[in-house]
Amino acid sequence: MIEIRYHDAEGFFMHDVRPVELREAEVRMIDQRQLPEKLVYVDAKDARETAEAIRAMVVRGAPAIALAGAFGFYLEASRHISESADKLEEVLVKAHALLLASRPTAVNLSFALTRMMNTFHTLALREVRVDEIVRGLRAEALALQAEDEVACRQIGEHLLTLYEEGMGVLTHCNTGGLATSRYGTALAGFYLAKERGMALRVYADETRPYLQGSRLTAWELQQAGVDVTVICDNMAAAVMAQGLARAVVVGADRIAANGDTANKIGTMGLAILARHFGIPFYVAAPVSTIDPRTPTGAEIPIETRPEDELTVIRGARIAPVGVAAYNPAFDVTPSDLITAIITEIGIYRAPYAFSH
Amino acid sequence: MIEIRYHDAEGFFMHDVRPVELREAEVRMIDQRQLPEKLVYVDAKDARETAEAIRAMVVRGAPAIALAGAFGFYLEASRHISESADKLEEVLVKAHALLLASRPTAVNLSFALTRMMNTFHTLALREVRVDEIVRGLRAEALALQAEDEVACRQIGEHLLTLYEEGMGVLTHCNTGGLATSRYGTALAGFYLAKERGMALRVYADETRPYLQGSRLTAWELQQAGVDVTVICDNMAAAVMAQGLARAVVVGADRIAANGDTANKIGTMGLAILARHFGIPFYVAAPVSTIDPRTPTGAEIPIETRPEDELTVIRGARIAPVGVAAYNPAFDVTPSDLITAIITEIGIYRAPYAFSH
Repeated sequence: MIEIRYHDAEGFFMHDVRPVELREAEVRMIDQRQLPEKLVYVDAKDARETAEAIRAMVVRGAPAIALAGAFGFYLEASRHISESADKLEEVLVKAHALLLASRPTAVNLSFALTRMMNTFHTLALREVRVDEIVRGLRAEALALQAEDEVACRQIGEHLLTLYEEGMGVLTHCNTGGLATSRYGTALAGFYLAKERGMALRVYADETRPYLQGSRLTAWELQQAGVDVTVICDNMAAAVMAQGLARAVVVGADRIAANGDTANKIGTMGLAILARHFGIPFYVAAPVSTIDPRTPTGAEIPIETRPEDELTVIRGARIAPVGVAAYNPAFDVTPSDLITAIITEIGIYRAPYAFSH
Repeated sequence: MIEIRYHDAEGFFMHDVRPVELREAEVRMIDQRQLPEKLVYVDAKDARETAEAIRAMVVRGAPAIALAGAFGFYLEASRHISESADKLEEVLVKAHALLLASRPTAVNLSFALTRMMNTFHTLALREVRVDEIVRGLRAEALALQAEDEVACRQIGEHLLTLYEEGMGVLTHCNTGGLATSRYGTALAGFYLAKERGMALRVYADETRPYLQGSRLTAWELQQAGVDVTVICDNMAAAVMAQGLARAVVVGADRIAANGDTANKIGTMGLAILARHFGIPFYVAAPVSTIDPRTPTGAEIPIETRPEDELTVIRGARIAPVGVAAYNPAFDVTPSDLITAIITEIGIYRAPYAFSH
């Protein structure tokens, strides 16, 4: 695994943020831990190095992690192109286990690796040549990337139908290109608008305590030339009251059957403010985020994280030693506050009743 | 002006936070710039050193600044106790100008210095001895302190009638003992409850971008042994939804004749959330904060502050270079969202109609 420091992030524009890319003999990842100060890429040449990069959180966002895993799996195969199919299988079983263990809770990663393994078995059963199996694995990994990109793009298309030229839209956390293959979910509409010359003004909540909004959302939208303004989370009400934001769009971690939505802490407050000011509140997420087995938000467990994530910012203490802090990572927005749920297959509106 | 570093703030409890104290030959101020990491006092021995400390923001909060000014004025007089009354007048006119210029917009400071100057003139006209004039000035400065303390204590008494044993109360920014002579305004109820053995649980919004909540409110309540928990501003809705906070109390920078209240950015959002969850929203402030010449909140100008106050925390950049940021310092909460306005002379409830 090697690091490639092209330049400081300052003053450089990518136009097209892709957190994970398959190159000739390596998977190239943006090191998201170093944003926004530095734009550093990490190259991994096999399954072990890719798993290492995932574990070290070079890459974040479940779809982006899944993609990195699939690419690492393919790279491992490509390095054994001269071996027998039996030997290759042995290598890939190990690669699968290694990559899966790199972030055990990300369901997207498990799904992607299963598809890669199934592709191998399908081709091996048909007794195709090993170099063709490897080419098949490359095609499958690229298909996973293309599918995610298409889904994000479709979410963006649907979001665009809800926006008007010149409109201000407020967003929270990072659900952008950095978390997916490209475009993102809640941010997808902004990228498509940019592609088509439609002007939108984005207000990005900084999103305490992790600051994904100011560090990641602001950075990737700035790279793409989207008009973005960072605000503190507590300024959202003022931005709505002044008419600067006329819609809110957020992502989702899990959507219950009745539409209740778990997302980054602070989301529910935005939904309440949007209702107060009479502006629409949109949730944008792939259909895979909807979990019909969870009847309502009450059944979604909310993780409480360590206090020092809140009381220390980049090494500096901002609260007295020994003081208590409460750090819930998510909240659940009741579905009656959600104007619409935007997925790649369409727009849902209340009342929500998702089933299998 | 000398610094006295007693100890690191960690592990030390003051019980009784007084940001400004008059000692034998100096005014002793807590250096609020260094909280919560270090508890450092600054001693100023005359008007020049006091003005210097005020200008350098050792002390903040309009009532505390006014007090420091009055003490500095008295100290200057005490250093000229052997001079003639004419010479003393000359010295005090200069001291008045010097101290007034140290923070030109703080109306409380101007008011306190006028009272000190008037005291001098009254005594000088009566031709009392210079050492008695100096004693009179000391008495006047201490009276200013006592009046502020009594007003804060009365606000606290009124707030206590609104709280119940064991209740969780959410507050924003710092309107505590550090900003006044003692007790503070919105925090006064918590100190009085502590004195009387009534248990309250305080949730302190960290209050971005300046973090007055996590740095100052959390510190001074912790010093006094009050049960305080720091949260990010965007966690307020979750804390209300979970029933942890059953009331909100904030201070005020200016209250219009109709009750509209300008206060630290983020206040209006809390008022909207409180209304949504059906919990009371209280504004606590001395009557001097009410400005009957301002008809409504629409006439209160809102200061927009520099972007880097938001994009840099303690020297670390948290947003990309060159990205736009919007940093309004205050917002205006419409009076219909305010359950009650608590002052030293009583509790006002909507509809508000303040006049001269």
